[in-house]
Amino acid sequence: MKKVKVGIVGLGRLGRKHAENLAFRIPHCELTAVCSVVEEEVQEVMDEWNIPYGYTKYEDMLANQDLDAIFIASPSNFHCEQIKQALSLGFHVFSEKPLGLYVEEALDVERAVKAHPNQVFMLGFMRRYDRSYMAAKEKIEAGVIGEPFLIRCYGLDPASKMDSFLKFARANYSGGLFLDMSIHDFDLARWYLGAEAKEVWAIGGSYARPEFDEIEDAETGAAMVRFEKNAIGIFVAGRNCAHGYHIETEIIGTKGTLRIGTVPERNQVVIMKDEGVIQECVDGFLERFEQAYLSEAEEFINCILENRKPAITVEDGVQSTILGYSCKKSYETGQLIKVNAENLVT
Amino acid sequence: MKKVKVGIVGLGRLGRKHAENLAFRIPHCELTAVCSVVEEEVQEVMDEWNIPYGYTKYEDMLANQDLDAIFIASPSNFHCEQIKQALSLGFHVFSEKPLGLYVEEALDVERAVKAHPNQVFMLGFMRRYDRSYMAAKEKIEAGVIGEPFLIRCYGLDPASKMDSFLKFARANYSGGLFLDMSIHDFDLARWYLGAEAKEVWAIGGSYARPEFDEIEDAETGAAMVRFEKNAIGIFVAGRNCAHGYHIETEIIGTKGTLRIGTVPERNQVVIMKDEGVIQECVDGFLERFEQAYLSEAEEFINCILENRKPAITVEDGVQSTILGYSCKKSYETGQLIKVNAENLVT
Amino acid sequence: MKKVKVGIVGLGRLGRKHAENLAFRIPHCELTAVCSVVEEEVQEVMDEWNIPYGYTKYEDMLANQDLDAIFIASPSNFHCEQIKQALSLGFHVFSEKPLGLYVEEALDVERAVKAHPNQVFMLGFMRRYDRSYMAAKEKIEAGVIGEPFLIRCYGLDPASKMDSFLKFARANYSGGLFLDMSIHDFDLARWYLGAEAKEVWAIGGSYARPEFDEIEDAETGAAMVRFEKNAIGIFVAGRNCAHGYHIETEIIGTKGTLRIGTVPERNQVVIMKDEGVIQECVDGFLERFEQAYLSEAEEFINCILENRKPAITVEDGVQSTILGYSCKKSYETGQLIKVNAENLVT
Amino acid sequence: MKKVKVGIVGLGRLGRKHAENLAFRIPHCELTAVCSVVEEEVQEVMDEWNIPYGYTKYEDMLANQDLDAIFIASPSNFHCEQIKQALSLGFHVFSEKPLGLYVEEALDVERAVKAHPNQVFMLGFMRRYDRSYMAAKEKIEAGVIGEPFLIRCYGLDPASKMDSFLKFARANYSGGLFLDMSIHDFDLARWYLGAEAKEVWAIGGSYARPEFDEIEDAETGAAMVRFEKNAIGIFVAGRNCAHGYHIETEIIGTKGTLRIGTVPERNQVVIMKDEGVIQECVDGFLERFEQAYLSEAEEFINCILENRKPAITVEDGVQSTILGYSCKKSYETGQLIKVNAENLVT
Repeated sequence: MKKVKVGIVGLGRLGRKHAENLAFRIPHCELTAVCSVVEEEVQEVMDEWNIPYGYTKYEDMLANQDLDAIFIASPSNFHCEQIKQALSLGFHVFSEKPLGLYVEEALDVERAVKAHPNQVFMLGFMRRYDRSYMAAKEKIEAGVIGEPFLIRCYGLDPASKMDSFLKFARANYSGGLFLDMSIHDFDLARWYLGAEAKEVWAIGGSYARPEFDEIEDAETGAAMVRFEKNAIGIFVAGRNCAHGYHIETEIIGTKGTLRIGTVPERNQVVIMKDEGVIQECVDGFLERFEQAYLSEAEEFINCILENRKPAITVEDGVQSTILGYSCKKSYETGQLIKVNAENLVT
Repeated sequence: MKKVKVGIVGLGRLGRKHAENLAFRIPHCELTAVCSVVEEEVQEVMDEWNIPYGYTKYEDMLANQDLDAIFIASPSNFHCEQIKQALSLGFHVFSEKPLGLYVEEALDVERAVKAHPNQVFMLGFMRRYDRSYMAAKEKIEAGVIGEPFLIRCYGLDPASKMDSFLKFARANYSGGLFLDMSIHDFDLARWYLGAEAKEVWAIGGSYARPEFDEIEDAETGAAMVRFEKNAIGIFVAGRNCAHGYHIETEIIGTKGTLRIGTVPERNQVVIMKDEGVIQECVDGFLERFEQAYLSEAEEFINCILENRKPAITVEDGVQSTILGYSCKKSYETGQLIKVNAENLVT
Repeated sequence: MKKVKVGIVGLGRLGRKHAENLAFRIPHCELTAVCSVVEEEVQEVMDEWNIPYGYTKYEDMLANQDLDAIFIASPSNFHCEQIKQALSLGFHVFSEKPLGLYVEEALDVERAVKAHPNQVFMLGFMRRYDRSYMAAKEKIEAGVIGEPFLIRCYGLDPASKMDSFLKFARANYSGGLFLDMSIHDFDLARWYLGAEAKEVWAIGGSYARPEFDEIEDAETGAAMVRFEKNAIGIFVAGRNCAHGYHIETEIIGTKGTLRIGTVPERNQVVIMKDEGVIQECVDGFLERFEQAYLSEAEEFINCILENRKPAITVEDGVQSTILGYSCKKSYETGQLIKVNAENLVT
Repeated sequence: MKKVKVGIVGLGRLGRKHAENLAFRIPHCELTAVCSVVEEEVQEVMDEWNIPYGYTKYEDMLANQDLDAIFIASPSNFHCEQIKQALSLGFHVFSEKPLGLYVEEALDVERAVKAHPNQVFMLGFMRRYDRSYMAAKEKIEAGVIGEPFLIRCYGLDPASKMDSFLKFARANYSGGLFLDMSIHDFDLARWYLGAEAKEVWAIGGSYARPEFDEIEDAETGAAMVRFEKNAIGIFVAGRNCAHGYHIETEIIGTKGTLRIGTVPERNQVVIMKDEGVIQECVDGFLERFEQAYLSEAEEFINCILENRKPAITVEDGVQSTILGYSCKKSYETGQLIKVNAENLVT
């Protein structure tokens, strides 16, 4: 039986997790090459996991004729270019979100993907492969809550990582709070509601740390979105969540409500002591979405093997980026903003 | 020891509950008179509870020299006038929310209350006397969550009462969804955040029942409010909550978060059977706020006996009304609205 | 309309709560007399609540011809004698649990109650009037869980009160852990299972505080009981619960399970901060069973007014005492014990 | 780098899950051979997963010189003999619980393991590798709950599987309810308490289905165990859990309590609809312990590669079997039983 041979670019925290999954946990997949600008990372992974090829230049990896597919887990500003290069050379491509840092980049990727219709392209909206989020989708499709008309999404990073974010954000352009943190939520909203965003108002500010004002970003922000069919979207994003990594989604329909992740529980242990009854919480995306990261990569490999396309399309990435930029623009201007690409392309 | 003698107007569901509390459950209080336009209600309560005086005309009750205080639980459109009359005759006054159906009425009541500084006036924002909401306030004041900067409030009536609401709403002006359902939430937001609303955008629609469009009201709606200090308010109100009466409040601060009523549990029983683990829910305000209704009435009586003023002021009623009307205007125009009284007084 | 005139004996923590309910919160009830060996308590309550009669001798209160009913909230060792005296003088009687400190006393009271069939006698098994426990009973009777066959009951006092208990227990005979703490649970087990206890094995010890060994009592203990129809009872009682006053009951039936009080939540506030998601807990019976204490007293008054008998009978008290003493005997001897009165009467 | 080559015997539900993990999800492990008396199963797995060797006779697989380790997932009555054979031929051995169906068998295996001190032997007490159970152990070792002195364990199979169990049990000897269902709980109790069982009383019966009486087994049963240091063990096992597969463990210590799995939640989705707020539950061990099954197999492979022994020893298996048989004996005789091997070996 054929094994899909994959090369990965980017060996940071998430990149390394992807690499480990590709190397050891996915049937019919082989991690054949790793690439990072940090030479030690490349060497370390090659040695530790017995990976045959290692590169510090992306172009060199793309020249490897053994490879079937490229997995992109590099910093966001490289995504657009790396996706296009890999597609043009005939590789199947998986890319971490976002498609790019600007709407133009997202649209650029969209064109490239459409120009290579026989290659698998998949975007890392891993939540769609998380068991809880999948179960919610099934409930909705089974009519359990009737017609969904309101979605509320929280995406809150733990306060413990605020310092390192501020350090990163001073040196890099992240796209800002809504694009960086809420993009998964925007995708979920479109997925669950089956509707596109029409208008948005976004507010917020810096509350604990004035440095966020300095970098012209929000520490915590909220966006309210009017979707088609008057559906309501409420999005809260933040970088100062005391209790951990809080990803919560609520979908209200005409006959019921679903909530996912109301308490971001770390495990099934409850502690009862002086302070009360305590549930400890997860502290980051690797912990919360471990299963989803594996499942999405499995789906990518299976799509290649079975010659089919994943349910997540490049347009999902484009639309989420457009909504993210609309939030950003609303936050910066204080205005109510119509959501469309033309408003955003400069 | 002196007993405060109270006359109540309005013997509907909530009025009767208030009457029962005043008659039997509050030390040093005596329910001396009841008044309702429905004569049978008056007779029934007089007989059942041994109440000495009964009236079908409010003015007649106000003429009773035995009474110290008037408790107003009549329909909202009577509040403004009845408050003013009772105050002008020297009575202490408790009134159910709202102060009136229009901003003008609220301002009118405010003037009347200020003109009678020696009488106790209290508005029925009972949630401030609910033990859970009180505990949350204490936590905030103790600094447990740092500086609060975001509040999210859900006020959802049970779907089981949607029909009777629609019937009522066709015949009566309720002020609309936000004024009718969210006014308690607006008060809580101001109380917990210690800030006034500056701007609002409200959206929503009818999802299950087109009749809401006909009466130009929202079945479910959401309002996002920018408060002073860039604090964020998110308000969801609705009339179609499948699982019951869902009153939920979340306050996020710089060091932590409080949630009140995440699951609107009916009691401490959990049922485990085929469908899963089930928590049954409360189905209305009388069930959820039974303790608060009693405690607020006790506070009213104690204020009279101890010659002091309650913490809830008429201004709390005025500001909440202004915010409610701002939501209504935003919902109706689709615009982002500055919150101030001048915009609303016609 | 007639008011029931009540005299209460015992003005400790629970006694005073009962007195306050009788004085102010129950329709058609009047707290006419109070009695305590502590003269200051009597004076204080009379003054504060305007009570007409006060006594330091129980016999003097019984001589008051104005009274209809006697409410006994004195220390447990007085219950038996005080119940008998009041019954013999024609009063209706409510007594806190237990009927007495010994099986003989319980049987003695049973004879007295049966000798006065026209007077209301009620025992303070207040949990049967707690809304959650009542709802559980209704669910069972409605067949929601099929035929109940296993009950698990936790009765754990907060660690914060361990010192004061040890001080009390050195000077007084409490009946021991199982009789003192589990008697409500024994009553619930019989009520929910509809079966009597046949055999018991009880174990336990002192774990945090060796003083419990010195007073020959268990700090925490567990009893397993075989009931009729092979139904299973599991009872855990203790005096060292770190998180508060933990009263939990589980009933497993052939078609489902009910759990009451899994988390002994203080209110509906949840705190999310560094440590995780925290639910604070109740710290004692007055907090947990406030509603039940009021409802049971209302039921007592209503029984008198309506000339009917409460559902709780003196036999419920006798059987629970017999089971409590059987646990005690098993704990002390290490043996498996048949449950019956003959084994216990010396 | 070396890969450990494993042959597995038993391709039932759990066996196939183990096989899949060994084949695809564990670094440095290769599933080289599969064995089952059902020839189609062998062929199917070989074809589907590209496994080089397949057998219908266990002895034939043991003759394969390529193999390093044997994984035993066959029916319980084969465990003892298959373990001994594999050990004697020099293989590392992983065996599903139990060591054998009788205490004699368990002691037999113990002798065999001790006779081969240089081979890895591991018993499938997978819960010790479940993240929640591991976290609980860490909390205890960190002193969070002080000294543990009471453990309560529920092991309840879903009602949906009662029919198939009854069918199986009529044809096979399972060891009975306590040995079959509670053996993991007995291991957890010893692990968390750090104490051995001294005395036990076990009761129970058939409640929904009289067939259990016919096969002389309990449908649901409870055992109370006195451990060393007077520690208390409460074990409930059953085959008729309406809401799913309910594995719950509580450990009470002198300073706090831990609970694991209070609600056997299927995922993080909560459904709110007419009936209330609903959490769906897991329906079997494969769903609940998926992560643990993988982690234990990884640990087995790592032990081989790193030339060390797993924390679970053969004695853990022996002691749990002894306690299980003591429960069985108590249940059958109705007597309080001292726990020791001599009582049980016939």
